[in-house]
Amino acid sequence: MTRSSPTRLAALRAHLAAAGLDGFVVPLTDEHMSEYVGGYAQRLGWLTGFQGSAGSAAVLADRAAIFTDGRYTLQVREQVDGDHWEYAPVPQTSVAAWLGTHVAEGARIGYDAWLHTSAWVAEASAIVADRGAELVAVDANPIDAIWTDRPAPSPARITIQPDDFAGASSAEKRARVADWLAEQRADAVVLSALDSIAWTLNIRGDDVSHTPVALSYAIVGADGTTDLFVAPEKLDDTVRQHLGNAVRVHDRAAFQPALRDFAGKRVAADPERAVAAISDALTAGGAKVLALRDPVVLAKALKNPVEIAGHRAASVRDGAALARFLRWVETDCADGSQTELSATAKLLAFREATGLLKDTSFDTISATGAHGASPHYHCTEESNVPLEPGQLYLVDSGGQYADGTTDVTRVMPIGALAPEQGKEIRDRFTRVLKGHIAIATAVFPDGTLGGQIDAFARRPLWEAGLDFAHGTGHGIGAYLAVHEGPQRIASPNYPGGAAMEPLRAGMMLSNEPGYYKAGEYGIRIENLLLIEPRTIPGADRAMLGFETLTFCPIERTLIEPSLLTQPELAWLNAYHAQVLDTLSPEMTGDDLAWLQEKCAPIG
Amino acid sequence: MTRSSPTRLAALRAHLAAAGLDGFVVPLTDEHMSEYVGGYAQRLGWLTGFQGSAGSAAVLADRAAIFTDGRYTLQVREQVDGDHWEYAPVPQTSVAAWLGTHVAEGARIGYDAWLHTSAWVAEASAIVADRGAELVAVDANPIDAIWTDRPAPSPARITIQPDDFAGASSAEKRARVADWLAEQRADAVVLSALDSIAWTLNIRGDDVSHTPVALSYAIVGADGTTDLFVAPEKLDDTVRQHLGNAVRVHDRAAFQPALRDFAGKRVAADPERAVAAISDALTAGGAKVLALRDPVVLAKALKNPVEIAGHRAASVRDGAALARFLRWVETDCADGSQTELSATAKLLAFREATGLLKDTSFDTISATGAHGASPHYHCTEESNVPLEPGQLYLVDSGGQYADGTTDVTRVMPIGALAPEQGKEIRDRFTRVLKGHIAIATAVFPDGTLGGQIDAFARRPLWEAGLDFAHGTGHGIGAYLAVHEGPQRIASPNYPGGAAMEPLRAGMMLSNEPGYYKAGEYGIRIENLLLIEPRTIPGADRAMLGFETLTFCPIERTLIEPSLLTQPELAWLNAYHAQVLDTLSPEMTGDDLAWLQEKCAPIG
Repeated sequence: MTRSSPTRLAALRAHLAAAGLDGFVVPLTDEHMSEYVGGYAQRLGWLTGFQGSAGSAAVLADRAAIFTDGRYTLQVREQVDGDHWEYAPVPQTSVAAWLGTHVAEGARIGYDAWLHTSAWVAEASAIVADRGAELVAVDANPIDAIWTDRPAPSPARITIQPDDFAGASSAEKRARVADWLAEQRADAVVLSALDSIAWTLNIRGDDVSHTPVALSYAIVGADGTTDLFVAPEKLDDTVRQHLGNAVRVHDRAAFQPALRDFAGKRVAADPERAVAAISDALTAGGAKVLALRDPVVLAKALKNPVEIAGHRAASVRDGAALARFLRWVETDCADGSQTELSATAKLLAFREATGLLKDTSFDTISATGAHGASPHYHCTEESNVPLEPGQLYLVDSGGQYADGTTDVTRVMPIGALAPEQGKEIRDRFTRVLKGHIAIATAVFPDGTLGGQIDAFARRPLWEAGLDFAHGTGHGIGAYLAVHEGPQRIASPNYPGGAAMEPLRAGMMLSNEPGYYKAGEYGIRIENLLLIEPRTIPGADRAMLGFETLTFCPIERTLIEPSLLTQPELAWLNAYHAQVLDTLSPEMTGDDLAWLQEKCAPIG
Repeated sequence: MTRSSPTRLAALRAHLAAAGLDGFVVPLTDEHMSEYVGGYAQRLGWLTGFQGSAGSAAVLADRAAIFTDGRYTLQVREQVDGDHWEYAPVPQTSVAAWLGTHVAEGARIGYDAWLHTSAWVAEASAIVADRGAELVAVDANPIDAIWTDRPAPSPARITIQPDDFAGASSAEKRARVADWLAEQRADAVVLSALDSIAWTLNIRGDDVSHTPVALSYAIVGADGTTDLFVAPEKLDDTVRQHLGNAVRVHDRAAFQPALRDFAGKRVAADPERAVAAISDALTAGGAKVLALRDPVVLAKALKNPVEIAGHRAASVRDGAALARFLRWVETDCADGSQTELSATAKLLAFREATGLLKDTSFDTISATGAHGASPHYHCTEESNVPLEPGQLYLVDSGGQYADGTTDVTRVMPIGALAPEQGKEIRDRFTRVLKGHIAIATAVFPDGTLGGQIDAFARRPLWEAGLDFAHGTGHGIGAYLAVHEGPQRIASPNYPGGAAMEPLRAGMMLSNEPGYYKAGEYGIRIENLLLIEPRTIPGADRAMLGFETLTFCPIERTLIEPSLLTQPELAWLNAYHAQVLDTLSPEMTGDDLAWLQEKCAPIG
């Protein structure tokens, strides 16, 4: 059991009562609104036992709730004690809506202004105020006071991301930010998203799990010069030289005071990425805060030719490692001798054998049987189980390489599936594949929103009364975050509005429809895509399409060819021919023979 | 030429200058945010010459712009003088964005608070303020001062919509509003949308083009009793008796003062449907305004069994009239003897021959050749042209009947198409048909957003590099507005957020993909749909699907069967079999023989 003891919840309540608070809100983020956070910021996990990568909690004196989305419906029930926590589904409800229902008149509910956006504070305050209660910013996070063995922030050194991989110098990137500031008639922009800072300055770090970024803040001025706020011990002379005179380095503690030095200036801060404490400090100092999206977000999403070439190289290397692993699953796991964790270690070994792996791009999802039905299953020593013959095994993983970040999901049978379940699984797998192909082959006008094409991935499942409770695709960084905005393929009401972002040439996205049967199995087929211009004879507008970037066989024994149309079969066979063509030079002997067999034409 | 003389624009500028204003905003709506408005509110058309049903204008001292969406790209250039007006495309720009670019520092820009929502005022004020300018509510609309022959509001009488058609009594409906008020802890709700008032009170009027509603306001209280503000001469004793004691009738002029009588009360007003003047008056009177959607909007969209049965009857009647007309187009128009207007008159005659037509549900779009490329072409004496052999003719029309409102589009060749263009047209028509079928056959989880399925209608066009610049489907009233919210099938960023509405069983929608080739022709295939629960064996969630409600042949000579998949052909043949089955009892002689021929299986 990884469950947190209820004594932590009791300790928090005692601390809140002593501080004159009737409740507290606990998000899973850091002072940068990061998706993945360092150990020091894992307050939600510490308090509740929840190990997922997205969620939040609200604590009142007499009740407490944990909020998770469809990916974690099963997992939250396993990890968080239902005797002390209500399970609240997102987006059907939210912390603010729940507080609006349960808060008592006159109550004072605390929040940490370094962990929420101003928009959240405004919305939640209005809802709570409608109940005659109040949202109060705390001076210090009460969890930190009771979390006695809280990890310190990482001391990792910053490294340089060479222009050979970045494709543009930091000076060029900062000049583009300066151009944007001129367009907005703004004097400066606060960059608080860690990957925006890393991209802009062509630096990388190791402070956050699986994402090569450094805890820092940056303020870029109208002339492109930049103030970087970071622990000074993270920088050696080489990095200082790389940053140059146009980047002034300050201690991270100097950031909040610096925000008060913009009296009368127009300063941009991203309402989704900068925490409330930042705009509060700017406003308190007399600045006019412009709530504009961080200009780096879109620039970073539009990959340049060097980044694209780097990703292609990383994809081949990573695809070959994964293919070797899948062959190992087929040949060495059918006897029940392996476990989810031993398979994770084996896959890591295949990736490490490339000699170029920096890190995995997220915790590998190595999930067999019923564990696969949790789309973001996190395997621990406690949850670990053997890969049993007859089970369906799902592996979602990726690598961080200096030239690219990968993310790929495949499923494999362990030994032979039972006939009846096997028939159902092949039907479901083939429907997921049809949805995957419908995205991979989509052609759409330049500027189409990601939310508009999401249903292409779902229609084959919908026709059988099925669906999957997560988005179809997320953006991905170039040796940066495995989940990167602004674009996304998801239902238009996906939280944060990412699915309302226009799709543009140069963006990368994952394509990962799935199907999950609680208590039995999970299916997901994930490749990465590049958006490219598409020339069509007779077209009367600029069109875009996808190039699939990921190369690895899609398990043929799970496909029911009679469910595929001729164009779908043609796509599948062309894809496998391309996989063979691309990975063959990386493979030899039995691996190559296996690849040839797995990529042979179907149907 | 229907173009407005530039003297009107000059007169407005002179009037504004005298009033100390540097500009003015001219929307096309009325004090109820209606889509179609009475003649007295056609200020945009009077000022600019624009005859479309949606648009707005902004006037500054030195420049002026007219804002229209993709439906009117061609039409606005024909009707509005480009020497005096810039053409501004929506949603690429907006009145507020344009003002933010062009307004001078210190400028005072007027607006009429009875013609804008509070949300618009807040957004536009912020943008203009960022330029150091100011948005100012005028006491009286300056256009009314210079529009000397402005029509008076309609004096039409109110009629009763019997429960036999409405399916629920006004008392039941008001009780549901009262239940909603209790849920919201609100004391009253202001109903300002004319169709909400008509639906709630089971009354109809004749004050607005093609929509059977009466100019009025209503305030429903926590006990379900209602204050109705309406010109008293519109009510006879029968209607007063129908309304009963629970509905107190006041003069329309008493509405604004009444809004000031809610000191300390919680009063709901729809931020999208109630104009800024309403919330301004409530706030000035000391009420707390709850910005909540008008509760009637969703209730009205979920048709009850009586309304559905009524619509089915209206559909059969209307479909037979349209089929007779299409046969007339085929047989009597091939010689070039008819015009767009004579065809409009003929179609009206066929509908009137049913003996039950109350009105058309909008101005018939009778468009031949290049006129068809304006999706909302409005035929006038000046634009009228003969239906020439070789042209494609598009007719989009509908009827208002006491039991239902219809809306249907068909295209027909006039005589024989030229071989080369005919080939292209059959390709485009068949792609539009494939999109139409993709919507008609869609199955999706309960609560799927309209914006999520829109691309099903576009994919066959996208594959050829084509698209259409309007939504795929709109809601429709039950003897009410032909365009009715809240649901819509459209790109998720459709203005107003209607495409973000969850689809629910009982909603009706149009299904109307199209293709438009500027200067040559237009194609649109439109049927109405009912959303119904769909039972699928093995489904793991509640699913919905569409039942097609409109019965009329889809022109077979325009279909290229080789472009259709087997399931698409099966749908088409099943649809035509159903059309034949449904309309045959209404047809005799040559009409019946024609129908049989048009509905014979294809492929």
